[in-house]
Amino acid sequence: MDECIFCKIVRGEIPSTNLFESGNVLSFLDVMPASKGHALVIPKKHYSTLLDMPHEELKEAMEAVQKVAAAVMSSVEAAEGFNVIQSNREVAGQVIPHVHFHIIPRSRGDNLNFAWEHGKAEQKELEKYAELVKGKL
Amino acid sequence: MDECIFCKIVRGEIPSTNLFESGNVLSFLDVMPASKGHALVIPKKHYSTLLDMPHEELKEAMEAVQKVAAAVMSSVEAAEGFNVIQSNREVAGQVIPHVHFHIIPRSRGDNLNFAWEHGKAEQKELEKYAELVKGKL
Repeated sequence: MDECIFCKIVRGEIPSTNLFESGNVLSFLDVMPASKGHALVIPKKHYSTLLDMPHEELKEAMEAVQKVAAAVMSSVEAAEGFNVIQSNREVAGQVIPHVHFHIIPRSRGDNLNFAWEHGKAEQKELEKYAELVKGKL
Repeated sequence: MDECIFCKIVRGEIPSTNLFESGNVLSFLDVMPASKGHALVIPKKHYSTLLDMPHEELKEAMEAVQKVAAAVMSSVEAAEGFNVIQSNREVAGQVIPHVHFHIIPRSRGDNLNFAWEHGKAEQKELEKYAELVKGKL
């Protein structure tokens, strides 16, 4: 994709602070980090969303997420945990339409909040809904 | 793990509204959903965090995430996108210490917000930090 920022990073046309690279995957630091050590893992090939990724490339990406997350966790002194966030489509907050996994180190008092207000679903509603989903699997 | 809620669900000791099951993976609807169709994917074996998951089980889990997310997307009328969120350790909002992937359908005006305030990192700081991380890989 000519104009995709992540494709440009993969091609070396835009600089990036790389952490890790394997055959189909690249990891680099987010230039607009949510917290210190915020890293990204992307497939080198352009896929818009998670649903477009072939299984083998997804496997490789997730192994990179594990590897980079472990290294980041042992590099950020304050980090006691991390979130992996992967957003699909603009409505979900996806800014760059090239699949990416955020690895966000978390520490006490970091003022980040990825929680949500818990609803309480009716069991009957869940069951009805599950039938609908299973029909689409 | 005797007392783990997700292990109990896997063993059938606590009811769940299942969507999908494969050899090492189970998917079911979250009983306290962030949005309609909010689903979970878990490994059947107990692993505390993403870093503890063997590669093959992670691959199987992510294929289930793709499969369930696609089905959920075509079942929730309003959904135009989705977030995958996977949290590790209490500080990151992990409530149940058994690895789980949230699939959260998103629609316009859903009042969910998993974004963060973007910092702007100094390039020198990123480079210094990348060296540190690469030393731990």
